[in-house]
Amino acid sequence: MADRRVRLHVDHPLGPGQTVALSQGQAHYLGAVLRMAPGAAVRLFNGQDGEWRARLVEAGRRGGVAVAEVQEVPQGAPPDVWLMFAPVKKAQTDFIVEKAVELGAARIMAVATDFTNAERVRADRLQGIATEAAEQCGATWVPPVEDAGRLARLLDGWDPARRILWADEGLAGTACGGLAALPPGPWAVLTGPEGGFSPPERARLAALPHVVPVRLGPRILRAETAALAALVLWQAACGDWR
Amino acid sequence: MADRRVRLHVDHPLGPGQTVALSQGQAHYLGAVLRMAPGAAVRLFNGQDGEWRARLVEAGRRGGVAVAEVQEVPQGAPPDVWLMFAPVKKAQTDFIVEKAVELGAARIMAVATDFTNAERVRADRLQGIATEAAEQCGATWVPPVEDAGRLARLLDGWDPARRILWADEGLAGTACGGLAALPPGPWAVLTGPEGGFSPPERARLAALPHVVPVRLGPRILRAETAALAALVLWQAACGDWR
Repeated sequence: MADRRVRLHVDHPLGPGQTVALSQGQAHYLGAVLRMAPGAAVRLFNGQDGEWRARLVEAGRRGGVAVAEVQEVPQGAPPDVWLMFAPVKKAQTDFIVEKAVELGAARIMAVATDFTNAERVRADRLQGIATEAAEQCGATWVPPVEDAGRLARLLDGWDPARRILWADEGLAGTACGGLAALPPGPWAVLTGPEGGFSPPERARLAALPHVVPVRLGPRILRAETAALAALVLWQAACGDWR
Repeated sequence: MADRRVRLHVDHPLGPGQTVALSQGQAHYLGAVLRMAPGAAVRLFNGQDGEWRARLVEAGRRGGVAVAEVQEVPQGAPPDVWLMFAPVKKAQTDFIVEKAVELGAARIMAVATDFTNAERVRADRLQGIATEAAEQCGATWVPPVEDAGRLARLLDGWDPARRILWADEGLAGTACGGLAALPPGPWAVLTGPEGGFSPPERARLAALPHVVPVRLGPRILRAETAALAALVLWQAACGDWR
């Protein structure tokens, strides 16, 4: 059976007997929504000290306190893959961030492409979604989510040691079967907006030696589907799904 | 550039000069929402005759008419893979259906498992979502969506010639790397609800020779993420993404 104890990310050191302050939101959730009593067991992680069993001491209107008891899961790390995606509509962008955490992206970057047509990304809000997804999926880390600016500028300063798996609908590139041969090492997955990448973007990406194009099947995928699918393929080929 | 002409599924034969009745909803969309004038080009498909270029004749309050001109895309078919998924909350179930069409499932079946905790599936509503997804993604078919009843009963009458790729979180089964060796032929992908499959279900599935377990990485995936990821892996290993 799945472990049904509540799992929370805290921004606080964790150690034996460590008193941990809970946020107002967390305290409200535990006390008022779940009606958990003092002494109830919860699980805490902070991205550095692994996952700890803790006991709730109090959860009231102004916040709450728990005490860490014992480490139950050692600190882990995601495989070294970034997701660079062109933000789309709000619900779809939220979805991409949530799923990227579940699928094990180490860093989540909203990039503006020539055809990007989205309101400004609120990285703080998306970071909250990433935190909830990490709490849910059992990751002991929360990947950073950032507004990474324009794709062209990112490519200007790119370290070629990090390969880019580029999902381009327009390009009949490497078939998926070829993914088994992806070399290990740091990677980023790059997916575009509705409408794909512009001709100048495609020409530039195609000419970069550290960019590996991949075709995600014969149908037109929505932007959020492409981001997920590309991450899944990378995980199965190079990541922690092998 | 992507073809931006409107693409509609019609329940009507298509051929040269064929007059095609549009539904009230389609006529409203073309006439009132998009403000398309008579003579505008649209694309039509019906799941049998391929995709046709057509001209709008009229789009009014009571419906509309188009005339098919020439077949532009031959009739296609999805690879022979079914998605059997345990329905979850409404938004997530809708999402699974939409993405399953994009990812090329030939048949979409909501199955009730021991831990399924969802209101009754409205297959007619989900079929509408599948139709919209097919219009969007360029498929010339719309996969049927059905309420397929209980998993146990489905397995009772199962044709063992159709293998089942079973995504079970609880099972450290075939790693994803092993997918390259999946044999060709008819398949179904089976994914469970939040909480996974029950111990009796898992024991039964594990004992069936036509069931191939697969583990979708070390994190706990939400039900909709698992359904998508399993379809992506199957497509890359056996389907039309190769």
